[in-house]
Amino acid sequence: MFFRTKALDEALDIVRARFHPLEEAEVVPPQEARGRALAAAVRAPADLPGFARATMDGYAVRAQDTFGASEGAPAKLRLAGEVKIGQPPDLHPPLAPGEAVAIPTGGALPPGADAVVPVEDTERPASKEVLVFSPVAPGANVMAPDEDLRAGQEIFEKGHRLRPQDIGALLGVGITEVQVVRRVRVGIISTGEELVPPTEEPRPGQIRDINSYTLRAQLEEAGAVPKLYGIVPDEAESLLVKTREALGENDLVLLSGGSSVGTRDLTLTVLSELGEVLVHGLRIKPGKPTILGISDGKAVVGLPGNPVSAMVTCEVLVIPILQRLLGEKERPRRPIALAELARPVPSAKGRLDFLRVRLVRREGRLLAEPILAQSGAISSLAEADGLVTIPAESEGLEKGEQVRVEIW
Amino acid sequence: MFFRTKALDEALDIVRARFHPLEEAEVVPPQEARGRALAAAVRAPADLPGFARATMDGYAVRAQDTFGASEGAPAKLRLAGEVKIGQPPDLHPPLAPGEAVAIPTGGALPPGADAVVPVEDTERPASKEVLVFSPVAPGANVMAPDEDLRAGQEIFEKGHRLRPQDIGALLGVGITEVQVVRRVRVGIISTGEELVPPTEEPRPGQIRDINSYTLRAQLEEAGAVPKLYGIVPDEAESLLVKTREALGENDLVLLSGGSSVGTRDLTLTVLSELGEVLVHGLRIKPGKPTILGISDGKAVVGLPGNPVSAMVTCEVLVIPILQRLLGEKERPRRPIALAELARPVPSAKGRLDFLRVRLVRREGRLLAEPILAQSGAISSLAEADGLVTIPAESEGLEKGEQVRVEIW
Repeated sequence: MFFRTKALDEALDIVRARFHPLEEAEVVPPQEARGRALAAAVRAPADLPGFARATMDGYAVRAQDTFGASEGAPAKLRLAGEVKIGQPPDLHPPLAPGEAVAIPTGGALPPGADAVVPVEDTERPASKEVLVFSPVAPGANVMAPDEDLRAGQEIFEKGHRLRPQDIGALLGVGITEVQVVRRVRVGIISTGEELVPPTEEPRPGQIRDINSYTLRAQLEEAGAVPKLYGIVPDEAESLLVKTREALGENDLVLLSGGSSVGTRDLTLTVLSELGEVLVHGLRIKPGKPTILGISDGKAVVGLPGNPVSAMVTCEVLVIPILQRLLGEKERPRRPIALAELARPVPSAKGRLDFLRVRLVRREGRLLAEPILAQSGAISSLAEADGLVTIPAESEGLEKGEQVRVEIW
Repeated sequence: MFFRTKALDEALDIVRARFHPLEEAEVVPPQEARGRALAAAVRAPADLPGFARATMDGYAVRAQDTFGASEGAPAKLRLAGEVKIGQPPDLHPPLAPGEAVAIPTGGALPPGADAVVPVEDTERPASKEVLVFSPVAPGANVMAPDEDLRAGQEIFEKGHRLRPQDIGALLGVGITEVQVVRRVRVGIISTGEELVPPTEEPRPGQIRDINSYTLRAQLEEAGAVPKLYGIVPDEAESLLVKTREALGENDLVLLSGGSSVGTRDLTLTVLSELGEVLVHGLRIKPGKPTILGISDGKAVVGLPGNPVSAMVTCEVLVIPILQRLLGEKERPRRPIALAELARPVPSAKGRLDFLRVRLVRREGRLLAEPILAQSGAISSLAEADGLVTIPAESEGLEKGEQVRVEIW
């Protein structure tokens, strides 16, 4: 078997070409759909707000009655009543010429009125008299019945991920059920003779299996439903059996574990047995020994064993697979801080580097200090505030250079 | 009562001065602590990795045996065995001078060895012979027993919010329980005669109560535990009773509802009755009619009724209160996109403006198109991709100006 390592963009093109959005949808109330991807576009079922609504506290008027009004020569209108908030528009008799009706923000305009004069542009010299000091145009300070949304208008497209405000928007137009793509199920298998569960005390030479838990938390944060399959010894048959089991129960399977050549070869053997190997080696650092395979349309990813490498590769390759399965649009997911690089950092040309940095404020400047610990170091997981991407064509970054830090 | 409106920064100073981190902590396993704030600093219970570990596949050697080695004159070492991954270091006899032991990445160095020669710098001309073509320094390709973490070293400070990688780090050092600040409970009360629950069909003049649900989703996303108290009519006694009930059960209470002057006055009356009004009016847009009060050390916030205003004010004022109660460090929370403003936007000097924008890619450029809909519009909730902050000292932004868009 010969494989050329691939650039991350090539790998992502393969992801788009070979994996497809899940077909199954679930129907849930909007209140329970935060973070879910829409399985179908959503359209407004009716005009909104559905009635002409005041957008300021003031007086509902016929705009033409205010034309020419000024500080020196106010329009004098007869106060014909008051609209209460929540009251239907037709409760009030139609506005006759020269009349005004008091109205609160959100109130429904009575028939005949076509504008609202803000209360601060008026005076009430007598209980039944309103002076207007400034003219209003028709439609001023009024939201038209279909101004917010027209019946049938598309509100969200298919694949849109619902944010808090979208839940408000859906409920606001009277939608009480939405179709969302079902959650993606991800199986996580750990491999490596040296691994023990984190609840066990490792003997010298052993280490605790932490990647399963970091990956699980990353996937939960991204909205997937991860399931752990425990630690499998470095042995082809056991790994094959466990991977088959996980493939049967999930949409995507991650093999995370040993970074030694032996374990990597084993993962490759299992992926070849189960289907087709699509990517063997990525031109990124950390994350080079990543393997991507496909089995019956499902993705199987062999992640590097180093905790930092596993986490980075999950972010840049596994999460995009997840988004592909959900039919989600690509979107920025991480906060960005602009900082000054505190030290020069070399980088190999032809390789995409993800540099871990600590953010430090010094003399009013935000500095990004590269963390040079090995990617097997657990402390560097905790210390890093974020990542700086060094493009493949770059040979490194200068000290003092402005960098974009993706906050993790 | 006379109140001067406050700048957002003044309001946030008041938040820091008048509200204090919750004292109660909970003990949870790291796997269940994602997104939680630490109630106490965490220190490493032991050295990590605890043994000298190879960081590459190769041969464990005494570094001095390789000094002077070159392509032309390799050091010739005797292969004295193989270390298996997970095997304790003392299983192997001490390395004698001139010996090498095969070792995988992650393997424990046998006694006597102090460096690892990468496999690519070696050759194996015979089964018991290793040629080393390049010298290694002591410690090369080895992680020292306390290199990752020293026993007692602080890993996370109090108030740190646990990320996926932090869960891995905690488990990796053998910590199976952490103290986290208990979740903040937030009561949400809706006010406004015009409001009906979103499951009801509003009559003309009425609108659905959506702010409760947008706020609930925003607060859930921020890690709080929100509880809805339904819609209360615009009447002081009912609102007072309901607010007292919510204050008894929560750490923070939000009153969200009517934007009319009447409803605002009502909120003010209730806040004055229950405690002290700290902020009455913010110099931000949208969000001006915001009120902040304190009752028995608990925050009560009167939010504007417009959906966009309520959402923005929740983000810029309520979430910081939440973070204060958790003792969290301030940190960037939103992804940022840099874009070109598609149209000029005026702004009043002395007021902080939050401009809703739609992001559009056109001819390879990312444009931020201002959304000019009124802040009562539900469609504009759905349409906006993010917010641009226009500083108080600015009189507006030019067309083509580069802006930072906070993605919502």
